[in-house]
Amino acid sequence: MSLVDEINHNNVLIVGASQGIGLGFVQLLLQDDRIAKIYATYRQLESASELIALQDKYPERLICLSMDITDELQIVECVQQIRTEVNKLHLVVNCVGLLHEGSVQPEKSLRQIDPERLLRYFQVNSIGSVLLAKHLLSLFKHSDRSVFASISAKVGSLGDNQLGGWYGYRASKAALNMFMRNVAIEYGRTCPKTLVVMLHPGTTDTRLSRPYQGNVPAEKLFSVERTVTQLLAVIAQLQDGDSGQFFSWDGSRLPW
Amino acid sequence: MSLVDEINHNNVLIVGASQGIGLGFVQLLLQDDRIAKIYATYRQLESASELIALQDKYPERLICLSMDITDELQIVECVQQIRTEVNKLHLVVNCVGLLHEGSVQPEKSLRQIDPERLLRYFQVNSIGSVLLAKHLLSLFKHSDRSVFASISAKVGSLGDNQLGGWYGYRASKAALNMFMRNVAIEYGRTCPKTLVVMLHPGTTDTRLSRPYQGNVPAEKLFSVERTVTQLLAVIAQLQDGDSGQFFSWDGSRLPW
Repeated sequence: MSLVDEINHNNVLIVGASQGIGLGFVQLLLQDDRIAKIYATYRQLESASELIALQDKYPERLICLSMDITDELQIVECVQQIRTEVNKLHLVVNCVGLLHEGSVQPEKSLRQIDPERLLRYFQVNSIGSVLLAKHLLSLFKHSDRSVFASISAKVGSLGDNQLGGWYGYRASKAALNMFMRNVAIEYGRTCPKTLVVMLHPGTTDTRLSRPYQGNVPAEKLFSVERTVTQLLAVIAQLQDGDSGQFFSWDGSRLPW
Repeated sequence: MSLVDEINHNNVLIVGASQGIGLGFVQLLLQDDRIAKIYATYRQLESASELIALQDKYPERLICLSMDITDELQIVECVQQIRTEVNKLHLVVNCVGLLHEGSVQPEKSLRQIDPERLLRYFQVNSIGSVLLAKHLLSLFKHSDRSVFASISAKVGSLGDNQLGGWYGYRASKAALNMFMRNVAIEYGRTCPKTLVVMLHPGTTDTRLSRPYQGNVPAEKLFSVERTVTQLLAVIAQLQDGDSGQFFSWDGSRLPW
């Protein structure tokens, strides 16, 4: 039985929903009447116009919240706001991810290594998810089946790394996977109905991948809608023993 | 043929040599006459008295250098100082590692997660080694067989993680492994005679492990001398295809 089949009044939180895969999740989940509330966070109002427009269209079901995942206080405030309305979440997807941003560019070689940029990768791509896990725990303490998913990346797989490069992105996704594996173990003790998983979305046509799509064959470059549909199918098919695992968009397990 | 058998005038750099495993490497390598020069770095003079005393005893072969691995400029200056004397390194072992330090304590649960402490773990345990790799590259560009080893830890293995906890230490060691795997690939292109490896020393009786030795059976708690002897044996037995791999103290491969 899938997550959405089981629960008739699901509450969902999509973190990093202003653009790309996060926005795609919001758009698709709004079409599903079994979802009661969708909380959607954005970092900068300027780049969240599409999300805000959706809120005008679905004022009862979509609640947009401003939150910078690198600021723990903002996470706390955001969770407090959610708690004024609901006391359970059934699906959380953290879609926040940094590959390039202003002076932060993926490193082709050691010469381009900059310690400040590496710290920024860890702050956004790794630490953000574990802070969410810390503060969302209370909203997962219920007896309904639920899922906490983080968007990871296959390039964060150590065993799969044959090409090198992208030092900060790769290491921060490996660190994310370790953090979430730890979270899965801890949640397993305190809220065992919550499955914690890492998802590789495949290369998706978003702002994040745009500069690097050149070598991607057309059939391997997914639209946002396709990626989100595929990831929701993976989430719907999760089994009890799957917590702490790393899944690709087709449901296969990825190596660490 | 082992590394030290092959080269009669080895130059060695031990990073983080003031105490523990790093100091142990210096002590053991000083007893090997085939080692020409040992460069040994320490962060704080106050806690490096044993190392400094060794320099008085072996003024020709041991050169102590002050270096904080989190400060790229200090790494650059240290490498420049080494280059005034030699133009080749044959063995580098980075022994710097942070598990506890003042307010930084390994997290037993999510409640103890502090983003600043997590950043500190990444800065010391992960980013330090990749900065070394960046600036030492020129000293590995020679045709002698050489090794660049980083002390990692089995708790940094994702596949081996069954207990959870120690969020920052685990994730920073997983990130270190990813960085070094990348370094192995890049060094493989520019200085293919250099093998880049990650080493799990086993629980060793040092300041780092002291608060956590309670549950370690006596036969699994190694003296520094034993650990260093074992790790030098692993290094001596490395084969050409071993670059980018993660080895335990007994020479076995660890899972990612």
